[in-house]
Amino acid sequence: MAGQDIEKLIKLVSKLPSLGSRSARRIVLHLLKKKENLFFPLIDAMNQVAENIKTCEVCGNFDTSSPCSICSSEIRNNATLCVVQDVADLWAMERVSLFKGKYHVLGGILSALDGITPDDLNIDNLIERIASENINEVILALPATVDGQITAHYLLSRLKDFDIKVSTLAQGIPMGAELDYMDEGTLQLALNSRKAL
Amino acid sequence: MAGQDIEKLIKLVSKLPSLGSRSARRIVLHLLKKKENLFFPLIDAMNQVAENIKTCEVCGNFDTSSPCSICSSEIRNNATLCVVQDVADLWAMERVSLFKGKYHVLGGILSALDGITPDDLNIDNLIERIASENINEVILALPATVDGQITAHYLLSRLKDFDIKVSTLAQGIPMGAELDYMDEGTLQLALNSRKAL
Repeated sequence: MAGQDIEKLIKLVSKLPSLGSRSARRIVLHLLKKKENLFFPLIDAMNQVAENIKTCEVCGNFDTSSPCSICSSEIRNNATLCVVQDVADLWAMERVSLFKGKYHVLGGILSALDGITPDDLNIDNLIERIASENINEVILALPATVDGQITAHYLLSRLKDFDIKVSTLAQGIPMGAELDYMDEGTLQLALNSRKAL
Repeated sequence: MAGQDIEKLIKLVSKLPSLGSRSARRIVLHLLKKKENLFFPLIDAMNQVAENIKTCEVCGNFDTSSPCSICSSEIRNNATLCVVQDVADLWAMERVSLFKGKYHVLGGILSALDGITPDDLNIDNLIERIASENINEVILALPATVDGQITAHYLLSRLKDFDIKVSTLAQGIPMGAELDYMDEGTLQLALNSRKAL
């Protein structure tokens, strides 16, 4: 078998999401073969990120500065706040580059099964931000699951005393989808929320 | 979007085999969330490997020493040499832990399509080893493809002047396989090489 150091590295790589021991082995071999072009640059980039990345104390995003570049941006709209479950969702929204407001990362959603209560989430911070900042619309960009909806309802109840607009992402048939591949729930929902042309 | 450093890291991670930009993003986020338990240990392990790993000058394996631990092992059989295409195949053979001889990594196989000729492979070294070391059997553990067979034939022609046994891995139905999922080539081959019970 490979040396001890290599085995240790393979084991660590196999802990990464979507990788198993076989793909970890392939990745490590690939790195060993491309030492100059990939292995060393990757180590440098990882060091760079590990040393510099902070969690933004305002919104919860990852960035090299805190407040992050989105929170401290002067061209973004301070009045609209998009609430997301996770940094991954924030990045997904940013990839669309349509939303020009600011974000708030909850760090999860309520879940009876996983025992996640409002205290486990970044909700008090959100209420504080809405109370102190000049926010007039909150967009709840939460997952379209039961837990996501429960979280949205809970947030709505916490936000009802504020004079702000609260909205949620539209649900329906995704772009490019074939109707006969859609589940019944989505079809029902799309039918109920049909739009007049 | 995420900061520049993170984007750079995502781009490098997405170059690894079997990963795309989406899984690279997920992996980097996972690392950022598990800084202490995974990110830092991974960087350490990578540094450790990058600094210490050498290519064994005898067989071509990767290890912290050259000659590698297999080549310098005193309990392994010096008389049997297993010829493999790649270090990945060497590791695969070692995982079975049945073979107790030594290895020789070709670094590829002959390929008319990819323009790989005998000069591109570690073949002269192999001949030298057989001429100078006390080897009496060479096992050609090459891929069961056309290119693999061509390489095996070529090696056989180069080895015919030596008084050694040359063998190749058995071909047939893999363990646990259903016959109706097997391709015709494999079935034909398994039938032709049938064994008396």
